[in-house]
Amino acid sequence: MKILCYLCSIMKITIINGANLNLLGKREPEFYGNIAFEKYFEEIKKRFSEIELQYFQSNIEGEIVNFIQQAGENSDGIILNAGGYSHTSIVIADAVKAVSKPCIEIHISNIFNREQERHNSLISKYSTGVIVGLGLEGYKLAVEFLIKN
Amino acid sequence: MKILCYLCSIMKITIINGANLNLLGKREPEFYGNIAFEKYFEEIKKRFSEIELQYFQSNIEGEIVNFIQQAGENSDGIILNAGGYSHTSIVIADAVKAVSKPCIEIHISNIFNREQERHNSLISKYSTGVIVGLGLEGYKLAVEFLIKN
Amino acid sequence: MKILCYLCSIMKITIINGANLNLLGKREPEFYGNIAFEKYFEEIKKRFSEIELQYFQSNIEGEIVNFIQQAGENSDGIILNAGGYSHTSIVIADAVKAVSKPCIEIHISNIFNREQERHNSLISKYSTGVIVGLGLEGYKLAVEFLIKN
Amino acid sequence: MKILCYLCSIMKITIINGANLNLLGKREPEFYGNIAFEKYFEEIKKRFSEIELQYFQSNIEGEIVNFIQQAGENSDGIILNAGGYSHTSIVIADAVKAVSKPCIEIHISNIFNREQERHNSLISKYSTGVIVGLGLEGYKLAVEFLIKN
Amino acid sequence: MKILCYLCSIMKITIINGANLNLLGKREPEFYGNIAFEKYFEEIKKRFSEIELQYFQSNIEGEIVNFIQQAGENSDGIILNAGGYSHTSIVIADAVKAVSKPCIEIHISNIFNREQERHNSLISKYSTGVIVGLGLEGYKLAVEFLIKN
Amino acid sequence: MKILCYLCSIMKITIINGANLNLLGKREPEFYGNIAFEKYFEEIKKRFSEIELQYFQSNIEGEIVNFIQQAGENSDGIILNAGGYSHTSIVIADAVKAVSKPCIEIHISNIFNREQERHNSLISKYSTGVIVGLGLEGYKLAVEFLIKN
Amino acid sequence: MKILCYLCSIMKITIINGANLNLLGKREPEFYGNIAFEKYFEEIKKRFSEIELQYFQSNIEGEIVNFIQQAGENSDGIILNAGGYSHTSIVIADAVKAVSKPCIEIHISNIFNREQERHNSLISKYSTGVIVGLGLEGYKLAVEFLIKN
Amino acid sequence: MKILCYLCSIMKITIINGANLNLLGKREPEFYGNIAFEKYFEEIKKRFSEIELQYFQSNIEGEIVNFIQQAGENSDGIILNAGGYSHTSIVIADAVKAVSKPCIEIHISNIFNREQERHNSLISKYSTGVIVGLGLEGYKLAVEFLIKN
Amino acid sequence: MKILCYLCSIMKITIINGANLNLLGKREPEFYGNIAFEKYFEEIKKRFSEIELQYFQSNIEGEIVNFIQQAGENSDGIILNAGGYSHTSIVIADAVKAVSKPCIEIHISNIFNREQERHNSLISKYSTGVIVGLGLEGYKLAVEFLIKN
Amino acid sequence: MKILCYLCSIMKITIINGANLNLLGKREPEFYGNIAFEKYFEEIKKRFSEIELQYFQSNIEGEIVNFIQQAGENSDGIILNAGGYSHTSIVIADAVKAVSKPCIEIHISNIFNREQERHNSLISKYSTGVIVGLGLEGYKLAVEFLIKN
Amino acid sequence: MKILCYLCSIMKITIINGANLNLLGKREPEFYGNIAFEKYFEEIKKRFSEIELQYFQSNIEGEIVNFIQQAGENSDGIILNAGGYSHTSIVIADAVKAVSKPCIEIHISNIFNREQERHNSLISKYSTGVIVGLGLEGYKLAVEFLIKN
Amino acid sequence: MKILCYLCSIMKITIINGANLNLLGKREPEFYGNIAFEKYFEEIKKRFSEIELQYFQSNIEGEIVNFIQQAGENSDGIILNAGGYSHTSIVIADAVKAVSKPCIEIHISNIFNREQERHNSLISKYSTGVIVGLGLEGYKLAVEFLIKN
Repeated sequence: MKILCYLCSIMKITIINGANLNLLGKREPEFYGNIAFEKYFEEIKKRFSEIELQYFQSNIEGEIVNFIQQAGENSDGIILNAGGYSHTSIVIADAVKAVSKPCIEIHISNIFNREQERHNSLISKYSTGVIVGLGLEGYKLAVEFLIKN
Repeated sequence: MKILCYLCSIMKITIINGANLNLLGKREPEFYGNIAFEKYFEEIKKRFSEIELQYFQSNIEGEIVNFIQQAGENSDGIILNAGGYSHTSIVIADAVKAVSKPCIEIHISNIFNREQERHNSLISKYSTGVIVGLGLEGYKLAVEFLIKN
Repeated sequence: MKILCYLCSIMKITIINGANLNLLGKREPEFYGNIAFEKYFEEIKKRFSEIELQYFQSNIEGEIVNFIQQAGENSDGIILNAGGYSHTSIVIADAVKAVSKPCIEIHISNIFNREQERHNSLISKYSTGVIVGLGLEGYKLAVEFLIKN
Repeated sequence: MKILCYLCSIMKITIINGANLNLLGKREPEFYGNIAFEKYFEEIKKRFSEIELQYFQSNIEGEIVNFIQQAGENSDGIILNAGGYSHTSIVIADAVKAVSKPCIEIHISNIFNREQERHNSLISKYSTGVIVGLGLEGYKLAVEFLIKN
Repeated sequence: MKILCYLCSIMKITIINGANLNLLGKREPEFYGNIAFEKYFEEIKKRFSEIELQYFQSNIEGEIVNFIQQAGENSDGIILNAGGYSHTSIVIADAVKAVSKPCIEIHISNIFNREQERHNSLISKYSTGVIVGLGLEGYKLAVEFLIKN
Repeated sequence: MKILCYLCSIMKITIINGANLNLLGKREPEFYGNIAFEKYFEEIKKRFSEIELQYFQSNIEGEIVNFIQQAGENSDGIILNAGGYSHTSIVIADAVKAVSKPCIEIHISNIFNREQERHNSLISKYSTGVIVGLGLEGYKLAVEFLIKN
Repeated sequence: MKILCYLCSIMKITIINGANLNLLGKREPEFYGNIAFEKYFEEIKKRFSEIELQYFQSNIEGEIVNFIQQAGENSDGIILNAGGYSHTSIVIADAVKAVSKPCIEIHISNIFNREQERHNSLISKYSTGVIVGLGLEGYKLAVEFLIKN
Repeated sequence: MKILCYLCSIMKITIINGANLNLLGKREPEFYGNIAFEKYFEEIKKRFSEIELQYFQSNIEGEIVNFIQQAGENSDGIILNAGGYSHTSIVIADAVKAVSKPCIEIHISNIFNREQERHNSLISKYSTGVIVGLGLEGYKLAVEFLIKN
Repeated sequence: MKILCYLCSIMKITIINGANLNLLGKREPEFYGNIAFEKYFEEIKKRFSEIELQYFQSNIEGEIVNFIQQAGENSDGIILNAGGYSHTSIVIADAVKAVSKPCIEIHISNIFNREQERHNSLISKYSTGVIVGLGLEGYKLAVEFLIKN
Repeated sequence: MKILCYLCSIMKITIINGANLNLLGKREPEFYGNIAFEKYFEEIKKRFSEIELQYFQSNIEGEIVNFIQQAGENSDGIILNAGGYSHTSIVIADAVKAVSKPCIEIHISNIFNREQERHNSLISKYSTGVIVGLGLEGYKLAVEFLIKN
Repeated sequence: MKILCYLCSIMKITIINGANLNLLGKREPEFYGNIAFEKYFEEIKKRFSEIELQYFQSNIEGEIVNFIQQAGENSDGIILNAGGYSHTSIVIADAVKAVSKPCIEIHISNIFNREQERHNSLISKYSTGVIVGLGLEGYKLAVEFLIKN
Repeated sequence: MKILCYLCSIMKITIINGANLNLLGKREPEFYGNIAFEKYFEEIKKRFSEIELQYFQSNIEGEIVNFIQQAGENSDGIILNAGGYSHTSIVIADAVKAVSKPCIEIHISNIFNREQERHNSLISKYSTGVIVGLGLEGYKLAVEFLIKN
């Protein structure tokens, strides 16, 4: 982790989901599985009970910018799945670049075998790393990475 | 109509207008005519009094996503003019793709004889159909199509 | 309608179909439905019995140019589905541009979710408007628009 | 100035800052200097005490559209730094185009020697003019221009 | 062969040549050899006397569409060399796609070592297969393939 | 002239006009003037009475190919204005390439200050030369060139 | 001619040749023939003895700009062959655009069958017309056009 | 055949298969059928018992270069299916270009209706000819061509 | 895991490293850290002692194809870091596509903030998932994923 | 200002105008106003009488390079409007890059709403900043910036 | 030379030739001359007898990577002509980048006047320098440079 | 050397440097070293005292054309470093093409690891050969090559 939150008694990680990810588990299960993220988030918290985990979702680009700026202030690491904004949003990329905490970008489905306009994420170059196509499991691997590194 | 709302006593159609369309009738009449959409909406409701019509407008991309998700739940068809977001928004396109109701995309002016960056709509491929350049009349034709099909 | 045919006792509209549209109802029903256009044309004529409707079809690009030039002389509006020529023919586009009557472009299937080479129509920028993906119903909506405007 | 606000006793200018510009003075000083905009805004107001100055900032694209529409109603000039939205937002460009007041676009850093995706601003073609790379000083020069012209 | 013509006593194959191929044997022998196609067609008929062979040529795109549609009705296989139309004609490609008979595309010269605009054939993706650069011999190999498969 | 027609008592030149040029003098005078070509052709014949001049026009691409092939047999020079086909037709270009007579390409209006898709003529590289933007006068200059060279 | 030089007793035409055209007749005769331009200029003057002809040549881009500006002041028409600058010089194009006299662009060889980078002339869109590939004869045709129009 | 192997008592043809073609008959039968090439090679040898046939396969690009160089020395013709290397290997293309024996390129499936990156073969322009999409039958047709020509 | 190796007493995973990854720990530590992969592989084996792990490295593209084909036969999952071949090798991508075992693609450094030619991996679309920029830790996360899924 | 000219008693600023800017006030007033630069330069000198101002103009690219190199030696700041050379000249950009004095690039008209080829200035990335579309006023703002910074 | 091999009694230089360069002197003398490299290597050794020279050639990309890695360990400089791999091989470029010895890239023929796909070498940006088009003499000049620098 | 200057008692070589190379040794030593070319030219003359060497430099494109034309007349070989003009000047390329003497192109720094717009030299395809990235030493190697060949 690039900058440690020395005063915190326990590590804090913020998960931020972007547009249409509130539909997880409801629609298009061939891409996104059939489990709502809130339910999965409970699983993650159980598994990593030694740290503090926060979860935000918004369909509004600028609110995601706000969440990232806030997480940059009061978290030790960010896990970001910006959904469709990944491919068009310079301002979310700018927010990731501006904060000094490690940020792991997640895509649930394998964006590289979908349509051309979903292959390129503007956020990736400012992220610490990217996990693609490993389903919801990707979030857990990201938490694990942030804890160990 | 792809999925019928069997329990409804009457058909419901939601019209969603995107960015800057609150200026309709106020500015650039050469592109958009000189009648505010609210006024025109009254005309539509009068003509199609046998169905229930809702109208939403927002300049905020994520709110349009929200409107589409809601209309996907409680309407039988969507008429969408995303304005300038049509050409840049993957997340609105994703919302259209995710809902299982027919969606007709409208452009008031003929986007194909305007600037290059307005020729391509990211939403079109997930819409049922597209009506371009027929002015406000396009909304009425869309309602008519949704009722008949 | 841009120029009215003042001497005509009744309004005249010409429908022109281009290449391979003589196969409508015979092949590839997933794109084009299973009804021959001639049969559908009877329906249109019945519905709009107050006007005069003409129908032409050709697989030959230059004959479509001829039809458009003639319709420009003796009709009050044109409904044009140039089929595959839409994507390659500058000369059909030129003919539409040259005539002073309103021209509505129709595509039966949603060309925007088919192959890349079918996304762009050279004719659209010179048309009054474009109706895409609403099946054969698109022709009726176009007639309705021409009558009302 | 294109349209004068004749009834106003004093001239009104609205400054609008876009995404991540709330971080000015906090992060990436190599690009943006080390002074928060609010503090700099006090300086501007002192220097141009003969006019009325307003300042808005938002990370949300649609709110910036709202600010521009409002400034179009009740200001005599707009100074706009849309941040990362400059490079992707047709709807902000549309708002600038729709209002009839002069709009000066500002970029604090020299966007032309940064990454390729920051070279092109969709807003520029609808702005009165553009000032790039002159730091916060750019805002003062813009105010000066609006007063004199 | 995809669909057999069960009632025919003997197999029927239609060869269709496109634009400027009536000049074969008269001009540009470095690309096309020095034998007229009619003469070569006699050779083919002699060699494959057990089947029925038809030959059409036209310089007009739409007539080639007509020939393909007809061959789709009354032949068991098509051999098509559309000449220069191969590189520009979506409507010929559409006709090949629409018929349910196997179609072998032929190019007499090696189009891949000629000008860039001759490298890409729009027809190829809808053809069963393509034979390029083997001179007039390509037609015989195509007949042989259609008989055996 | 590349190949002389030695047996002819007088020189023969064929003028071929392509799609929509039958509308010359009727429509879009800002591009094409207000005189029908047939009338202008009389002028040309009067001015160059010492040679034999032929004139053909067609809206059909393949017929233009036929005219060029015929002119290649029985004329000493060709003057070709293929209209909109200039920008899309490889088969007309092929016909020009195949015949061994000099061919001067004409565009009445200056295609280089019109839309992008009209800037490039596929025919030009196989023509002897090209005259653009000099109005109907271009045809006379072409005849003059063919006589002198 | 766009603007007549009413006070002049005789018409004045300026011919301007650009880079490397001082080598005409010395090098690469396959492109440019074997006659020096100065000698050919004598022929032109003899043929059109009723007008005043000037000739300038320079290898320096800015001097060509100077010549065009001067000709714009004191000539009735310009004939310009900018040589290799045609394909790269916005400033020569700007000079042609700025002057209010007709300008005919000449290319001695057929630039359209040479390398790709020679196909596009930045000057053409601001010229009255363009004559390509007709050798030195092109200059005479241009003078003839300027006199007659 | 370009160069005859005069001293050979019988003709020699070398078949070279590239990367992943050792999996033929094992995987992805929808593209490549269900017969291993070794077995099919026995069929070819039986059918063309009057000539000598050799077969090589390698997954290593440079070994394919070696096979082509050797076949260039001691064979009368080459049949080459470079598999995925067709689309990326300039060095295999160079080897084909360097040897003076005819080379027929084979693709079992129709590469033109697969992914974009498989449409273009770097080898084609240096091959004598190309046979695409005719399955394993393509190899037999190639042998037949090499024998007859 | 797509296909289970039912007869194996323990799960088998194959790690394959491509070109120049034998230099890990020796050169360019800013990209790749300072630990040789062989040493790290010992760590992985210790951590996941319940499964069988194999490791191969080669600088030769075709040998990597061979390793993948073999792992497809006798492993339950593949972890592949093809190094520089990721961006150019269709044949390695083909091998991944052909085998029916899950394959996780790894990049040690964040390829998305390096040179343009390293942004696109041809292998990704055929992989199960991709882990980028998480250093050598990426290999452990991949093993963990393969075990759990 | 990057490097101060410590020995100078007063600050020195050099204004350099490029191609066709000698026509300012004479031609195309819709782009460039109707005042000659020499006259405006007098205004600038009056307003900033406390510093020394120099002005150079040339239509020749290399002379502009010379002016920049000289100003780099004996001025404290450069104001550069290279005109049409802005879009094509790497050598002027190189000169700006080579000198160690601040350089403000000026465009009188808004280049971003003119033709595509005028949108991109090669000089911008090496300039300190850029002022576009503010008319001649831009020069004064640039002087003001150089004095204050 | 970047890193000196201090313990060596004499300087060591390794020459590495890539694909198809074993054919030098045998084929395509218009590109590569008529002398085998082995023979020319004897000349080089004679001329530079004061240093130790090694020579490797391979048609296999990965072996060239191996040679470069080895030369990086035990030579003082590398001279590399990767042949056709120059234009496609990121892994060879990576190897050049990874070793800390100077590397001079050689192309015998002038790749810039050959086909487009041979204009760009991926290796050049990591090489110390490049010598193109000077025939086999290029190798000697490279040795001379490495000795002197 | 392509054409020998038979009457000369000693060989003559002309070195021509282009834009901004008069700054060599003064600025940007990381690219161009810290020695003025005039001083280095003395070294070259001393080393190659058996031949006659001339040196020209200009910042003006057309003067470089002049120098090349003159050197084509009275030298036996040309060494050309056109600086920034290399990437934009068709007219310098034309001059190199027009003269019949060998021309070696030099770039002091490795242009291939600098900005994209410096990778491509328009001059290279007409040069005999190109030496890149070997510093001022490149000039000496070029002289040596011209003398020996």
